[in-house]
Amino acid sequence: MTTTAAQRFQALLSRGARMGPRAMPRSGPIIYKFGAGNPDPGSFPYQELVQAMADVMELDGAHALSYGSAHGYDGLRDLVVEKYRLLEGLQTSRDNILIANGSNQAIALVVGAFVDERDPVICEAPTYMASIQTLRRHGADLIGIEVDGEGMRTDLVAERLGELKRSGRQCKLIYTIAQFQNPAGPTLSERRRRELVELAREHNVMILEDDAYGELRYEGQAPPSIFSLDPDGLVCRTGTLSKILGPGVRIGWVVAPPALVPYLSAFNFGGGVAPLTSRVCTFYLRAHLQAHVAELVDIYRAKRDAMLDELERGLADTDASWSRPEGGFFIWLKLPSRTDLQRLSQLAAAAGVGYNPGPIFMANGGGEEYIRLAYSFEAPAEIREGTRLLCRAIKGARTTA
Amino acid sequence: MTTTAAQRFQALLSRGARMGPRAMPRSGPIIYKFGAGNPDPGSFPYQELVQAMADVMELDGAHALSYGSAHGYDGLRDLVVEKYRLLEGLQTSRDNILIANGSNQAIALVVGAFVDERDPVICEAPTYMASIQTLRRHGADLIGIEVDGEGMRTDLVAERLGELKRSGRQCKLIYTIAQFQNPAGPTLSERRRRELVELAREHNVMILEDDAYGELRYEGQAPPSIFSLDPDGLVCRTGTLSKILGPGVRIGWVVAPPALVPYLSAFNFGGGVAPLTSRVCTFYLRAHLQAHVAELVDIYRAKRDAMLDELERGLADTDASWSRPEGGFFIWLKLPSRTDLQRLSQLAAAAGVGYNPGPIFMANGGGEEYIRLAYSFEAPAEIREGTRLLCRAIKGARTTA
Repeated sequence: MTTTAAQRFQALLSRGARMGPRAMPRSGPIIYKFGAGNPDPGSFPYQELVQAMADVMELDGAHALSYGSAHGYDGLRDLVVEKYRLLEGLQTSRDNILIANGSNQAIALVVGAFVDERDPVICEAPTYMASIQTLRRHGADLIGIEVDGEGMRTDLVAERLGELKRSGRQCKLIYTIAQFQNPAGPTLSERRRRELVELAREHNVMILEDDAYGELRYEGQAPPSIFSLDPDGLVCRTGTLSKILGPGVRIGWVVAPPALVPYLSAFNFGGGVAPLTSRVCTFYLRAHLQAHVAELVDIYRAKRDAMLDELERGLADTDASWSRPEGGFFIWLKLPSRTDLQRLSQLAAAAGVGYNPGPIFMANGGGEEYIRLAYSFEAPAEIREGTRLLCRAIKGARTTA
Repeated sequence: MTTTAAQRFQALLSRGARMGPRAMPRSGPIIYKFGAGNPDPGSFPYQELVQAMADVMELDGAHALSYGSAHGYDGLRDLVVEKYRLLEGLQTSRDNILIANGSNQAIALVVGAFVDERDPVICEAPTYMASIQTLRRHGADLIGIEVDGEGMRTDLVAERLGELKRSGRQCKLIYTIAQFQNPAGPTLSERRRRELVELAREHNVMILEDDAYGELRYEGQAPPSIFSLDPDGLVCRTGTLSKILGPGVRIGWVVAPPALVPYLSAFNFGGGVAPLTSRVCTFYLRAHLQAHVAELVDIYRAKRDAMLDELERGLADTDASWSRPEGGFFIWLKLPSRTDLQRLSQLAAAAGVGYNPGPIFMANGGGEEYIRLAYSFEAPAEIREGTRLLCRAIKGARTTA
């Protein structure tokens, strides 16, 4: 192949592809991995999954290795229904559930079913960076809404929807991470959830409720899900096994109005969704779901507390502030004023501490004064050590005014 | 939820979603399953995959259950490289390979990277029905090209490309199933493969070479792949483990110019591709690839021969004709003239014989006089029995002229 190959195919790329290739993350010498929201590999049930695989091969091997349903393995759909019933008393049925290759694909299916080029979409600012990419790839015109201690500001959502209506534009989707908002941390209050549902009804907008972490609540009481408050079939909710079993199984799902499910699954192009891994996960979780989640809650609560404790020790004498999430994997930290961001980046890298810079979570710019810290991956001792080193780097990056 | 729910979300659907929901196949009382191209569950290596799972959990469990690379597990990318080297002497490298959730998703990634609304795309007529759906969902304006004993008629491809050029339209993609064309059966001759590459070069068009069955050749010699003949980086080739291991693992891939791979993977929305199943399959295939493929070739050759034999016995005294594919899973049967299609459908259903009607393989209509028969799923005895019953139904459906 000649070196001009790139030029030849590039002239033919689709609109979406012209947005550019995937940026592959550079891998530096990170020792304390506070960047991505990776679960703790020490929590994975390795041997139990081998046993589940053996059981699947013995009892349902032919189906596990054959083409499956475009809506996913019914046993897993039923397990998801049972999970919602057990953990939050939510009544759904198999027909509400569409299995997907992880939560990101579940989100992409919903986005693909509603978003065309230049359609306005409301999201939180900050929000989950992968969803920003998914929405942009589908052509969304993103409108980021400020988040405060009660979650997304519904008063601002109402304003934006009003403006869009007056300018003759139809907002297609409101994308929200209502539980332990990623990255900012707050849980959307019940009052605002009801307001959001009312706004969706008034303006005829779909709501996409991304709930990847809801099972991992360390304290406090969850408000009812937005999905459960919706009388009009205007809410899709996504979930995943990534945080309560392991991301490598790539199993997520959409909870949607039954009539919508076949529209979403039309974007799953053939072969069915994950017949093998769905069964392995289902066989494991049927026996272990509640006990495993309870174990994870203890593991991650301790990690959160270790990081919060060290932040308090390290930064109490600054004007930095940070979230104290009731669940999930992340702390959203507002850096002390007059922090030299480039200097911080250098000092943290030299100390081997990885984190995610704020701007990647912002659909419309900003966020420079924030960083996101994941306490999920490292063991508590490393969390303490890494956080101490990070606090030292943050203090070392202050400019003398 | 009220019953008006469907109306509310429907007003918001994207262009693609407005093409309608997924049609779920009705499941009738089929005894002899000659419809879908399902592999033989008797060929699946159940116990070996349990062992592979145990090995993966022991040796690489943390990675297998964590987020993975957007380009797929490097061990599997290397295994695909090695497969091409072993089975056809083709030199590729890891950077050519993008892992996908099955061949259909691999195809969708290529289509998504090149096809916008109303872009002309050339395909064979007949062609694989799932790809027709994938292309249509992406907005392609499909142009079906006749297939003869040498495969897709490149003289007609040249004509169509000339017409498109004269009307100022850019054809984005030529989609071809060059080996044991699905459903028609022929293998594209080397002469035509070279012509196709030359046409792509002249008209600046991508070629998508869908090769889901290439490993399963029962006789004859494969021409060089189109990918191997391309000097310009204008060919993507897709492959899969569905036919040589099991569709339930949902593992396929794209072989593409390295510079194109990150453009394709940008449409994989987060989490990496199949970290667990990629490893389980790789661990199994590293030890068993060639022996397992050799075993499958013997299994499926015997099945093909059983069906061909019964068709010969049953229909030799009619003017029906059918393909004699050198590999793959399918026979394409042209029904005797004056067959009453509705009567055939009734008689076959009454006999419990399933098949795929010709029109579903046609992008621009036609195909009524054909049916596709898959000999892959049933055991040889059932193939013989079902084919005898089908031949009886075909004869019973002749109209008296």
